[in-house]
Amino acid sequence: MSNAAYKEMWEKLDLDIDAHDGLLAVLGKFYGDIYMSQQGRLKGMEYLDFVLSEVHGLRVKELQDAKAEGRKIIGTFCVFVPEELTLAANAVHVGLCAGADAGTEQAEKLVPRNTCALIKSFIGFKLARLCPYTESCDMVVGETTCDGKKKAYEAFAEHVNMHVMELPQTKSASARELFRSEVLRFKSELESLTGVTITPDKLAKGIKIVNDKRRALQRLSALRAANPAPISGRDALLINQVSFYDDPVRFTQSVNALCDEMEARIERGEGVVPEKTARLLLSGCPMAVPNWKLPYVMESSGAVIVGEESCIGTRNTRDLVDESADSLDAMIDAIVDRYMRIDCACFTPNTERLDNVVSMAKELKADGVVHYSLMFCQPYAHEALKVDSALREAGIPMLSIETDYSMEDVEQLKTRIEAFVEMVK
Amino acid sequence: MSNAAYKEMWEKLDLDIDAHDGLLAVLGKFYGDIYMSQQGRLKGMEYLDFVLSEVHGLRVKELQDAKAEGRKIIGTFCVFVPEELTLAANAVHVGLCAGADAGTEQAEKLVPRNTCALIKSFIGFKLARLCPYTESCDMVVGETTCDGKKKAYEAFAEHVNMHVMELPQTKSASARELFRSEVLRFKSELESLTGVTITPDKLAKGIKIVNDKRRALQRLSALRAANPAPISGRDALLINQVSFYDDPVRFTQSVNALCDEMEARIERGEGVVPEKTARLLLSGCPMAVPNWKLPYVMESSGAVIVGEESCIGTRNTRDLVDESADSLDAMIDAIVDRYMRIDCACFTPNTERLDNVVSMAKELKADGVVHYSLMFCQPYAHEALKVDSALREAGIPMLSIETDYSMEDVEQLKTRIEAFVEMVK
Repeated sequence: MSNAAYKEMWEKLDLDIDAHDGLLAVLGKFYGDIYMSQQGRLKGMEYLDFVLSEVHGLRVKELQDAKAEGRKIIGTFCVFVPEELTLAANAVHVGLCAGADAGTEQAEKLVPRNTCALIKSFIGFKLARLCPYTESCDMVVGETTCDGKKKAYEAFAEHVNMHVMELPQTKSASARELFRSEVLRFKSELESLTGVTITPDKLAKGIKIVNDKRRALQRLSALRAANPAPISGRDALLINQVSFYDDPVRFTQSVNALCDEMEARIERGEGVVPEKTARLLLSGCPMAVPNWKLPYVMESSGAVIVGEESCIGTRNTRDLVDESADSLDAMIDAIVDRYMRIDCACFTPNTERLDNVVSMAKELKADGVVHYSLMFCQPYAHEALKVDSALREAGIPMLSIETDYSMEDVEQLKTRIEAFVEMVK
Repeated sequence: MSNAAYKEMWEKLDLDIDAHDGLLAVLGKFYGDIYMSQQGRLKGMEYLDFVLSEVHGLRVKELQDAKAEGRKIIGTFCVFVPEELTLAANAVHVGLCAGADAGTEQAEKLVPRNTCALIKSFIGFKLARLCPYTESCDMVVGETTCDGKKKAYEAFAEHVNMHVMELPQTKSASARELFRSEVLRFKSELESLTGVTITPDKLAKGIKIVNDKRRALQRLSALRAANPAPISGRDALLINQVSFYDDPVRFTQSVNALCDEMEARIERGEGVVPEKTARLLLSGCPMAVPNWKLPYVMESSGAVIVGEESCIGTRNTRDLVDESADSLDAMIDAIVDRYMRIDCACFTPNTERLDNVVSMAKELKADGVVHYSLMFCQPYAHEALKVDSALREAGIPMLSIETDYSMEDVEQLKTRIEAFVEMVK
C-alpha cells in the first residue's frame, strides 16, 4: 500500500500530515543509508525491511482493524510492563519508546531541557502529532523506573490515558510484594478497559506467546557467538526493536526462520564480516527506532556488534516466565518472579548486571564492550563506572559513550570508536 | 576552644589537616561576609553563630564524648530517615548533606560528572577527608529518593558502613507497606548496632523530642508571616540547617527563646527590613551548610526571604508524629503515616506539594516565589514547571533558578533576581 492510501487513516488519527510526510521521508532515507547499504545480509531480513517500510502503514492499519473488532491497544515504554497480561486480555501491546528528535521544542515546555532524548522524543512525538501508535492507544502504561520517566508521565498524563505502575527499587521480599500488587492492579485495569476477564487459560496462552518470542530472540542471540558473525549488529538491533510492536506470533515465526538461515550460514563458515573483524558488545541504555546512530558508527569503524546488553536486547529476553503454573495466582507469581529478575539500573544494588555483562562478553567472544548512556540518564551513567570496573577485572576493555539523538557528535564518536577498535584487535 | 585544641581530635578522625584548615578559613570568611554583615539581627542568633563557629569543633567533640560513652552516631542525608528511632536507640542522629564543592575531582571518579552538587559534595568531603561528621559515623543511612542518590550510595558504600532504606515512589497502600517494612528494618539495624532494644517508652520519648523540635521550627515559620519580616531568610535557613546536627533538646530551647524574642519584636512593629521590602518564598531543593549563595543574592537584591519550602525548611517540619499511640506497633504506624505525608518530588504524583507551595506563599504574604533546582536534580526540575503553573493560577509570580555550588553565576543570578524583585513589588 502506498502512503497515499494510508493518508486517510493518518488523518483520522489526527496526525500532522505534512510533518509526518517529512518524517517518513527522512526515516526512509536514513534506513536506506544505514540498512540497505549493508553487504551479505540474511534473506530473512526482507521481512524486517518490509515491517520497517510499513512501520506507520500496515502495522498501524492492523491496530485500527483490531480496534474495529473491539480490541484495545496498550502502549508501553519499558520492559517491565507484562505483555502476557495484555495478550490475556485480548489486547495489543505496543512499545512507544521513540528514538528520534521530534517536537523537541514542544516537549521542553512539558519537561526540563536536561531530560534524556528518549523521554523528550515520546513526548515530542505526541505533542507534534507524529506517532500513529500513540494516537491508537486506549491506555498508555508507564512505570517508575527512573526519575525522568516517573516525573515526565505526570505531564504526559495530561495528553493520554495514562496508567503508571510503581516499580520497586530493590529486590527485597517487601519490594516484590509491592510489584506483585502493581501487577494485579495492571491486570484489573486491563480487565476493566477491555471487558475481558483474564482466566488461567488465557494467561497461560499469553505467557506461552511471549516466552516463544523470547526463545526465538534467545536463539538469535546465542547464534551470534559464531565467528565470523552471521548477522550485523544493526540487523539484530532492528529485530529487537521490531519485537516491541510487531504481532508477536508472526514475529516469532520470522525470527525462527531467520535463525534457521543463520544456522545454515554458520555451518558453511560464512558471515557478514571477515573472521578477524573486531567483535564488540553494546551495553547500556535502550535504543528505540530509529536510534541507529551508534551501531552504525561502530559497524562503519571496522567492528561488528555481537550483542546488545540492553532493554532492547537481552535485558528483555534473557528470562522466561515459568510455564508450569496452573492457577491464576501461581501464574501471577511466575510473572512477578520473572520481571523481578530484570537487571535494570533502576535497582539498587544491581550487581547481577555486572555478572551478566561479563558473561555475555565472554560467551559472545567480544573483544571489547561499548557502554552507551543516553545523556542525562543517571542510572546508566552511574553503572557505566561499575561495568567498567567489572570488565577491567575480567580483562575486557570498555569504551564509555554518552550521547543523544543529535548527529552533531558523529565524527567525534567515529574517532573514539576507531581508536578503540584498533586497541582491542 | 581554639582550632589548635581540636587538632588532636581531627587527627584521630584522620582528616586531611591542612586541607581542613583551609576549609575552615574559607567557611569563616564566607560566614562573616554573609551572616555577620547583617543589620538588626536577633540576639538569639548568637547561639547559632556560636554553633556555626564550632561546627567542626565543639559539636564534633560532643559526638566523640557520646561515642566514648558507648553511644552510636547515625549519619543521614534525607528527611525520610526517622530520627525518632535513632533517639530511641540512644544514638545520635546527624545530617551529612554537604553544601560546598570539595574533593570534586575525587568524587567524579566514583559518580558521573552530571551528578548534582549535593551528592558530589558528600562524596567529595569523604574522599578528601574533610568531614568530621562522616568520620564519626558508626552507620550512614541512605534512602532511594532519587536516581542520583540511590546509585551514588552503591559507590559510597565502599567507603562507609552504609544502610539504604527503600522509599516507595507513590503513596498507595502497598507503597506504605513497603515503607513500613523498611522502617522496621531500620529499627532492627539500629538495635543490633547499638545493643539497645527500642521500647514503647523510649520511642515515645524520641517522638516527643523530635516533635518538639518540629513545633519550635513551625513556630518560627509562622512568625515570619509578620510584616516587616522579623528575621532574615539567611538566619532562618541557618536555623533549619543546624536542626540537622545540633543536640535536639538544646536546639529546641534555643529556637523557642529566639521565637520569644521575635514575638516581642513583632509586637513592637519592628523587623530586619523595611515594611515595603519584597517578600519572597524560596522553594525547591535542600540547601545544606554552607550553601547560602542564593539566599544571599536574594537578600542583597532588595528582597527578604519569608519561608523555605524545602527539606531544609518546612518539608521537614510541617508534619508531626501522632503522640497518642501507646504500643510499639501503633507508634511505628504513626511514624510511617507522618513520613508518608512528606511532599517530596520523589513521589508521583506529588500534587500536595503544589497545594502547599501556594498556601505557604499566601500565608507568609509572599510577593513572589523563587524556585531553586540543583543542576541535574531531575525530580525538582520537573516539578519547577508544575509549581510555576500552580502559582500562575494563584496569581503569584515565580522565578525558576537552576544552579550549583559554584560562584561563577552570582552576577547572572543577581541580575535575574533584581529584575524579578522589581517586577513583584
